[in-house]
Amino acid sequence: MRRKAMSTSLSELKTLPFWRSLSLSEQEIMANCAQIRQYQKGELIYSHDQECLGLIKVLSGNIRTFMLSDEGREIVLYRLQSGDTDVLSASCVVNQITFETQMTADTDCRLLIVPAVCLSNFKENNLPVRCFIFEKLGEKFSDVMHQMQKILFTPVDVRLSGAIKDHMEKCGKSEITITHQQLADEINTSREVVSRLLKRMELNGIIHLGRGKIMVANKSRLP
Amino acid sequence: MRRKAMSTSLSELKTLPFWRSLSLSEQEIMANCAQIRQYQKGELIYSHDQECLGLIKVLSGNIRTFMLSDEGREIVLYRLQSGDTDVLSASCVVNQITFETQMTADTDCRLLIVPAVCLSNFKENNLPVRCFIFEKLGEKFSDVMHQMQKILFTPVDVRLSGAIKDHMEKCGKSEITITHQQLADEINTSREVVSRLLKRMELNGIIHLGRGKIMVANKSRLP
Repeated sequence: MRRKAMSTSLSELKTLPFWRSLSLSEQEIMANCAQIRQYQKGELIYSHDQECLGLIKVLSGNIRTFMLSDEGREIVLYRLQSGDTDVLSASCVVNQITFETQMTADTDCRLLIVPAVCLSNFKENNLPVRCFIFEKLGEKFSDVMHQMQKILFTPVDVRLSGAIKDHMEKCGKSEITITHQQLADEINTSREVVSRLLKRMELNGIIHLGRGKIMVANKSRLP
Repeated sequence: MRRKAMSTSLSELKTLPFWRSLSLSEQEIMANCAQIRQYQKGELIYSHDQECLGLIKVLSGNIRTFMLSDEGREIVLYRLQSGDTDVLSASCVVNQITFETQMTADTDCRLLIVPAVCLSNFKENNLPVRCFIFEKLGEKFSDVMHQMQKILFTPVDVRLSGAIKDHMEKCGKSEITITHQQLADEINTSREVVSRLLKRMELNGIIHLGRGKIMVANKSRLP
């Protein structure tokens, strides 16, 4: 979707991490090309096969970055929060990014965007900006690897128990309100796997299942 | 293991991708710190919890980069061949690398190494070298993501069939000589999983199993 972009203010531009390394004329160019865009909760922000966005800086809201399997299964790679900068949304500018990702708004979002065309020029002609792009990419590499280690090395039942315990702590009760699909999304597996594991826990007397609810009967026996 | 390092020749140093961006005095510093090291097949080259190596350039041989699970299972991330440069072996220099990897010699290897201490100085004081380090890291990010997509999104039986077909093509016969463990290593799973899948294929009349051998009876029915 092509959306109306709002112009930026100097205070917003100054939050760009490489702003100080730009010359006055470069700052002017950046001010003319950078944009503010707003997205609603659930909206697609970036997809490798659609508009190449550019560098983004989250001014407010939360974003989910994920890979999509052929069957449509989501593997969450990392989340972005207010203040975070990211370049995975600029894959057309950074040749090194050859894998396919998507970004969705977890909440209503407000983003500062340096569009791909503009970013590409800076990348070629300004070494600090070029370096910044690749350093940012390196950071995301680590974020993703920690996530992958979790997915590949932690058994799915342990991940499920961990998620249930987290929710119990958050709401301070032994009954949590959550769907199997939400749990599946959180621990990067399918709803079917979550339902099967929960059923087994129920048979073992560890939990009781209600509609959209899980009552933990025996927390110490969670895997 | 601390090994005797051999001094480098100019022709070897000139293969460093950023050599031309160094001043004459920087080239001299690089010549004094860069080393050649040799490793034997199977030898550990780099481990996150041992000596921080620095930037490596493979002059000859092949290297395997992998993560190790708590149970000792290897997840191969990528392989390096003659001519490849890598910086994952310099995690102490690159703050962005916060995950743990290891490198092992798949064959006898000869490496040009820019040791961590020396690399660190160049990273801080030479922007082209700094950029090179992060660009290289970005490339590896993509290599790893393609591998992760394969592991997470391709069912293990399809990966196993693919490996068997590859070996059949390589040797031009329908009988291949390979152990279950070797196949498991190749497709990033455990030996138990490979043995179970092969047994099922045998029951279905697709293959016959021998000692260290697999005879493919019906290639078209491989998953």
